[in-house]
Amino acid sequence: MKFVIQRDRLLASIQDVMKAISSRTAIPILTGMKIEAKEDGITLTGSDSDISIESFIPKEEDGIVYVEQIEPGSIVLQAKYFPEIVRKVPMNAVEIESDGQLNVTIRSGSAEFKLNGQDADEYPQLPKLHSEDSFELPADLFKNVIKETVFAVSTQETRPLLTGVNVRVQDDQLHFVATDSHRLASRQIPISAAFDFQNVVIPGKSLTELNKILDENQDPVEIRITNNQILFRTKHLYFLSRLLEGNYPDTSRLIPNESKTVLQIDTKELLRSIDRASLLAKENRNNVVKLVTQESGKLEISSNSPEVGRVVEEMSVEEISGEELRISFSAKYMMDALKVIESEQVKIEFTGAMRPFLIRPTDDEDLLQLITPVRTY
Amino acid sequence: MKFVIQRDRLLASIQDVMKAISSRTAIPILTGMKIEAKEDGITLTGSDSDISIESFIPKEEDGIVYVEQIEPGSIVLQAKYFPEIVRKVPMNAVEIESDGQLNVTIRSGSAEFKLNGQDADEYPQLPKLHSEDSFELPADLFKNVIKETVFAVSTQETRPLLTGVNVRVQDDQLHFVATDSHRLASRQIPISAAFDFQNVVIPGKSLTELNKILDENQDPVEIRITNNQILFRTKHLYFLSRLLEGNYPDTSRLIPNESKTVLQIDTKELLRSIDRASLLAKENRNNVVKLVTQESGKLEISSNSPEVGRVVEEMSVEEISGEELRISFSAKYMMDALKVIESEQVKIEFTGAMRPFLIRPTDDEDLLQLITPVRTY
Repeated sequence: MKFVIQRDRLLASIQDVMKAISSRTAIPILTGMKIEAKEDGITLTGSDSDISIESFIPKEEDGIVYVEQIEPGSIVLQAKYFPEIVRKVPMNAVEIESDGQLNVTIRSGSAEFKLNGQDADEYPQLPKLHSEDSFELPADLFKNVIKETVFAVSTQETRPLLTGVNVRVQDDQLHFVATDSHRLASRQIPISAAFDFQNVVIPGKSLTELNKILDENQDPVEIRITNNQILFRTKHLYFLSRLLEGNYPDTSRLIPNESKTVLQIDTKELLRSIDRASLLAKENRNNVVKLVTQESGKLEISSNSPEVGRVVEEMSVEEISGEELRISFSAKYMMDALKVIESEQVKIEFTGAMRPFLIRPTDDEDLLQLITPVRTY
Repeated sequence: MKFVIQRDRLLASIQDVMKAISSRTAIPILTGMKIEAKEDGITLTGSDSDISIESFIPKEEDGIVYVEQIEPGSIVLQAKYFPEIVRKVPMNAVEIESDGQLNVTIRSGSAEFKLNGQDADEYPQLPKLHSEDSFELPADLFKNVIKETVFAVSTQETRPLLTGVNVRVQDDQLHFVATDSHRLASRQIPISAAFDFQNVVIPGKSLTELNKILDENQDPVEIRITNNQILFRTKHLYFLSRLLEGNYPDTSRLIPNESKTVLQIDTKELLRSIDRASLLAKENRNNVVKLVTQESGKLEISSNSPEVGRVVEEMSVEEISGEELRISFSAKYMMDALKVIESEQVKIEFTGAMRPFLIRPTDDEDLLQLITPVRTY
């Protein structure tokens, strides 16, 4: 195998593929990165067996030559050293060559690295997905949906299904739901094409890594699903993740359909106020803040840490209606929810101090955040 | 005590003073920050007993009012929460008030924090330095001297004196020397005023923290020394450090005064080449690279990690003279030394493979870096 490649293009692909490579893996060869040279370009592969990523660098694209002097072949290189080497080579052209004895030479300018490679035949074959169940989303929309939901997945392995984001089709809408059973994030987007599609649960970690790799543009991401795997494909990227098995709980019944107190308030101002109220309770795991409606029509946000002190703040609201309210909740959950809302104002619907409440952007009915309050009295 | 202060000015002072405050200290009140209000302004104090920092915020300066409504008094506040509170208050004006029961209230806009303070009378008095031994250095020059030397101090407590930078006067020059016994950094600067001055050793940590606080400008830093303490004073800052006790070793005899091989080479190119050569040996503590002069008049820089592979690179030099040379040394030491040299070219003087070698900027005879080679054959 041999080729000469543009450093920056190679480095970008390496960084994508590294997202799937872990130094802790039961299969030693997976600590390496597979490099495969074919006539039309170079493919890099990384995998931790949960996630597998392939990135393709075409020989030439849009009139720009990325790879030259290709002699087909493949090799696996230790991922621990390869990215740093490519980042630090002296010239923009990098030559990578392997001989029959798995010796790899990386040359750039007058610098030469000789590395021990591994046999690419020993690298696991990635499964090829044969599935007709596919649909497309623009990358920027998909990134947004991930951001709006994935933070709410559970980090505890006691209920493995909750560490994933549930995706299902209903009423010509694609529904994304994540919950750790204390809070829930839900986003729906309309779909135009009719297709037959299962209810699946995608590991939160896979979506987080995918979000780091996808560019913020409108290029389509093709999504293909089988029983136990999901593939995300863009022009030069192939991102495969296992799916979580089991029946995701029906979360629709958690969402109250009546409300007793309704607020409309500035999103950023509320976020900053909750942030301040939480300052003294940082080490407190629950980090509880209290919200109380005032006769003046304002809100009081407060928090009390007996050892340290007390914070209290009065906030103006845009609109308030319904019953008086005293409610306590996790500052972290509230901030997580508010941070992903871009709308200037949010509407918050409460159904008493003991029931979950809903946060929605005022300009977007398809995003919903739910938080279960904390009982303090 | 009461005053209203500009948030940004307060925050800048807090950040300086925090450099002296440690959450791990044998004296509990030192985890706090002392705040003292007088008619002319506010003084913040932090200390970990090795380093003490006072920062003064004048009531008014250059026509700008920083503090208003001052009612004199003092209090100690928990340093763990105070900086974050000030950073996140909603308005630029912050009111800080303490009552007779050590209750502190911080108000800004409609936000109010109530904190438990501690009695300022229990805070240790900082020693006042009565010393005639003082001199001044421009802040930017002093920062540079710190940067050029402090990285070479020892991090091991087995020889405590070597964890400091030695400062002494000789031949109308101020000498700064740091060594961990494997490498040495030395900078001298001419002094104009004649003064009586001891040979002192300043803890490296104190200089590192001071460097973070000093602004990059030509304002004078006044330096005052007693037997066991050193004071650095700028217009509004008072930085006190203990000195290390003992006789710093005479390092002048370590510096060879002859040389057998002399190189002149591009500083940044050499740095990058050593960096590349060290890539495969990262986990190797010694991280040794080899430098060999070539008949062609070039240099070969190489490194070998049996498990991983080998790097070799040929470098052009500006000038080379003297004997052939094969020498091995720590890549880290070489990079540390080269990083603080701003000159485009460096001169390296070797006296054989077993003797320490010298690195100097070509345009500055007053900075010297010495590295002891590693014996490999």
